[in-house]
Amino acid sequence: MSEARRIMIKVAYDGKAYHGWQAQEGMVTIESRLNEALCELLKEDIAVSGASRTDAGVHAKGNLAVFDTHARIPAEKVAAAMNTKLPEDIVVLESEEVAPDFHPRHCHSIKTYEYRILNTAVRDPLKNRYAHWTYVPLDVERMKEAAVHLVGEHDYTSFCSVHAQTDTRVRTIYSLDVTRIGEEISIVVKGNGFLYNMVRIIAGTLMEVGRGHMEASKVKEILETRDRHLAGPTAPPNGLCLINIELQGRKTI
Amino acid sequence: MSEARRIMIKVAYDGKAYHGWQAQEGMVTIESRLNEALCELLKEDIAVSGASRTDAGVHAKGNLAVFDTHARIPAEKVAAAMNTKLPEDIVVLESEEVAPDFHPRHCHSIKTYEYRILNTAVRDPLKNRYAHWTYVPLDVERMKEAAVHLVGEHDYTSFCSVHAQTDTRVRTIYSLDVTRIGEEISIVVKGNGFLYNMVRIIAGTLMEVGRGHMEASKVKEILETRDRHLAGPTAPPNGLCLINIELQGRKTI
Repeated sequence: MSEARRIMIKVAYDGKAYHGWQAQEGMVTIESRLNEALCELLKEDIAVSGASRTDAGVHAKGNLAVFDTHARIPAEKVAAAMNTKLPEDIVVLESEEVAPDFHPRHCHSIKTYEYRILNTAVRDPLKNRYAHWTYVPLDVERMKEAAVHLVGEHDYTSFCSVHAQTDTRVRTIYSLDVTRIGEEISIVVKGNGFLYNMVRIIAGTLMEVGRGHMEASKVKEILETRDRHLAGPTAPPNGLCLINIELQGRKTI
Repeated sequence: MSEARRIMIKVAYDGKAYHGWQAQEGMVTIESRLNEALCELLKEDIAVSGASRTDAGVHAKGNLAVFDTHARIPAEKVAAAMNTKLPEDIVVLESEEVAPDFHPRHCHSIKTYEYRILNTAVRDPLKNRYAHWTYVPLDVERMKEAAVHLVGEHDYTSFCSVHAQTDTRVRTIYSLDVTRIGEEISIVVKGNGFLYNMVRIIAGTLMEVGRGHMEASKVKEILETRDRHLAGPTAPPNGLCLINIELQGRKTI
């Protein structure tokens, strides 16, 4: 039997049909589908371990995961081989061998998420899948003003689910850009890590500011107060997409 | 009881979950969903009649349909009211009263369809729903050259399903534009009407030319021979979208 190797994969998916990333008894998840594809392909009992455990309904253009295998398949051929076993809403974009103790979750990384809002009077059934629709006109300039307060190193307790389990709620947001693209509003956030529901609560809060229910300056106060109840609602998952994870100090796949 | 009025609606939908437009026993279709919404809303047994009977899996940004009702609801309020009864992948964009004998299928009209192709080495699960993916590189210049032969008034027997039931297979294509937009190829066709599967067979044939399996000039010969077997395959439905129907000689909703 050959020695175990660790392989990292980059995965894109339409999350609509899935109960999130993480394998759960009786639920169809991205992780369980990847495990099934690998077991079928490599004839081994394999459990992938992901860098980012996206929520139910959230999409991804570039999540990362690793798994260990004794199979002799060349690492760079794993992606194409897995795609023959996966449903069409999950695609492995790339695969490569990494060190046996390497895990993308334990690397210093920059994660980029995008939250898209469709801001039209009438719902668009062809855009709705990847953008949260609201007919209430949103003022992007106000949203930009509010976003500035959230950039930097902060304790984001106010912007995370009360159910989040973590030692520290301090994270760094490197940038938070709000842009209008035609009838859509794009919120792109880059950070060193995000708490449970953090991007969706940021999006929900910026929407409250955009619709005029909250002053832009209030966001600074919410952040300082460290009380989840002061921030806006958690925006729906369909607008959210994990764009990519840049691993620092090594070539990203 | 008030006199019956005829109301026209403009409908957009994501066709993926539906067995096409036309109501069929035991099948979920766009037409059956619209009928159900209207029956629930207006408490009448209503059957809509569509301008274009799109196939299973085909999308639309602007199909048209009419129905007759005795209900007193203002015609322009029908759209918003229907949307409260419809699933999120079907939306009524507009509604207006028309003459009692008016039918968009019997008007002179210009229909616009778009066929989108995702031409990337690896499938993209976030684009796949609205574009047919092929990893074979397509040469857009060759496709443009072939498209020229299909414009004009022709007998399109070679480009229609052998199951098509119609008196004449003569139609007019006003324009057929092939454009590369990043990693996607867009085929936009405008005509006075299309035969069963016609746009998908045109797309399938242009793809054969684009991949180098067929000469661009061969398309002229196929058209003249009037033999379906000479044209390319019927391209899959997910790439196709009915963009709009412009009714001539009257304000389009």
